[in-house]
Amino acid sequence: MPQRTRTVFFVSDGTGITAEMLGHSLLTQFEGTDFTQVTLPFVDSVAKAEACIGQINEAGKRSTGRPVVFSTLVNAEVREAIRRADAFMLDFFEGFLDPLEAELGTRSTYTIGRSHSAMDQKQYRHRIDAVNFALAHDDGVSTQDFAKADAILIGVSRSGKTPTCLYLGLQFGVKAANYPLIPEDFDRMQLPQALEPYRTKLFGLSIAPERLSEIRCERRPNSHYADLENCRHEVKQAEFLMRREGVRWVNSTTKSIEEIASTILQEFKLERRGY
Amino acid sequence: MPQRTRTVFFVSDGTGITAEMLGHSLLTQFEGTDFTQVTLPFVDSVAKAEACIGQINEAGKRSTGRPVVFSTLVNAEVREAIRRADAFMLDFFEGFLDPLEAELGTRSTYTIGRSHSAMDQKQYRHRIDAVNFALAHDDGVSTQDFAKADAILIGVSRSGKTPTCLYLGLQFGVKAANYPLIPEDFDRMQLPQALEPYRTKLFGLSIAPERLSEIRCERRPNSHYADLENCRHEVKQAEFLMRREGVRWVNSTTKSIEEIASTILQEFKLERRGY
Repeated sequence: MPQRTRTVFFVSDGTGITAEMLGHSLLTQFEGTDFTQVTLPFVDSVAKAEACIGQINEAGKRSTGRPVVFSTLVNAEVREAIRRADAFMLDFFEGFLDPLEAELGTRSTYTIGRSHSAMDQKQYRHRIDAVNFALAHDDGVSTQDFAKADAILIGVSRSGKTPTCLYLGLQFGVKAANYPLIPEDFDRMQLPQALEPYRTKLFGLSIAPERLSEIRCERRPNSHYADLENCRHEVKQAEFLMRREGVRWVNSTTKSIEEIASTILQEFKLERRGY
Repeated sequence: MPQRTRTVFFVSDGTGITAEMLGHSLLTQFEGTDFTQVTLPFVDSVAKAEACIGQINEAGKRSTGRPVVFSTLVNAEVREAIRRADAFMLDFFEGFLDPLEAELGTRSTYTIGRSHSAMDQKQYRHRIDAVNFALAHDDGVSTQDFAKADAILIGVSRSGKTPTCLYLGLQFGVKAANYPLIPEDFDRMQLPQALEPYRTKLFGLSIAPERLSEIRCERRPNSHYADLENCRHEVKQAEFLMRREGVRWVNSTTKSIEEIASTILQEFKLERRGY
């Protein structure tokens, strides 16, 4: 058990997602402290900021050190109000808006909550359309619009294709379909016929057989499908097939959805349209 | 047409997603400049950094101002290499790691790519499980595990329930099901029977009828389903029903998925488990 405890607050005038992400990136660099994390979103007035202070100070009493506050607050008054809490505060906008103003030669609009808002309807529709595309083209249910796909993920059942496709759609507005590789494909040692016209869009996911067996066991315990030997066989065959057919692939075992998605965007030089 | 153009690079030793988010938050504060955005992920060595410099400098020649580089680079050598590009650079870690070290009284591990990695397998499984939950409990297809849901979204068809549930799962590891409100429910003016035991978990989404009609038209043009008058009727009835039954709800028309998801977390005081 770590001896030191801290409560970390992510305070934002918007959703708090940016503050969480950057704060979390920083916290992963520090070991030996147990961080309790609390997000306080939509803090867009001095009154709301003042309501947060009590919560922040209260948390400080229960920890070995004072709370850490990571904030993305556009409005300087709101920021100053939060600063009155008995906490260590780092605001992610404060240090950057001024130098950016100088560099760009324009004034910041200091508008609250612009990030993660639905302001840019066109960009936003890209994302929703891409999510719908992923859902409609999941697990080979339809190959109808494969021509419109930005990427088509292939791999054995439960290798991580579906969450990756959904993430590509939600985060980046990229249309990703997925198609399973099944034992019949290995018997023929050929790519499924439906994929032939789209070879250049294919990207493979592989996975450690032990991990695959574990995941499949949750779904169908004691099945041939989940059996470790069968998983070993399927993974080996799938990797052999992808290598033979010249399909690029990554092993998803130790990679996050974000890392896999980002790798795919980079490989296919796809534009990130999500924002 | 804006006269000024700039190319913005998001450079990271990881996926680049954090750099994009914070950079984008900052850019939304500046109007009148046309920003072309390029993400350079997985820049985890000086050699890779040097390969980026050419691309950054090249972009500068095509814009009216020098490129802007937003980076999240843990390694100081990689950061210094990028700094040799002819660009305006803001690193999101540089200014924060030192003060955090001082505050926490521990040294940063300076480990590359920790954010958005699959390091914390338990947290990570939460997310995958939650995505699978959302998929298995989409659009009322199954009510089997509603007892395990953190939230159940209700609303008329195409009001934004599915993308919100998927986002809650992918981003926050929160299990969200969704269930449609259909004309039969309005005739009875009662919540669907299946939802009765889970009243406290219900959260509604409404939408402007004009927007709803537009979205439905893309799916089924010239249908009664997509007809504006019908959409007006359904939305009015749904809002009446939710108000009558004391279900909290938001209008999704001008809200992003992130904003809706964040509002739901706040309303139900749900823990964000995604990281």
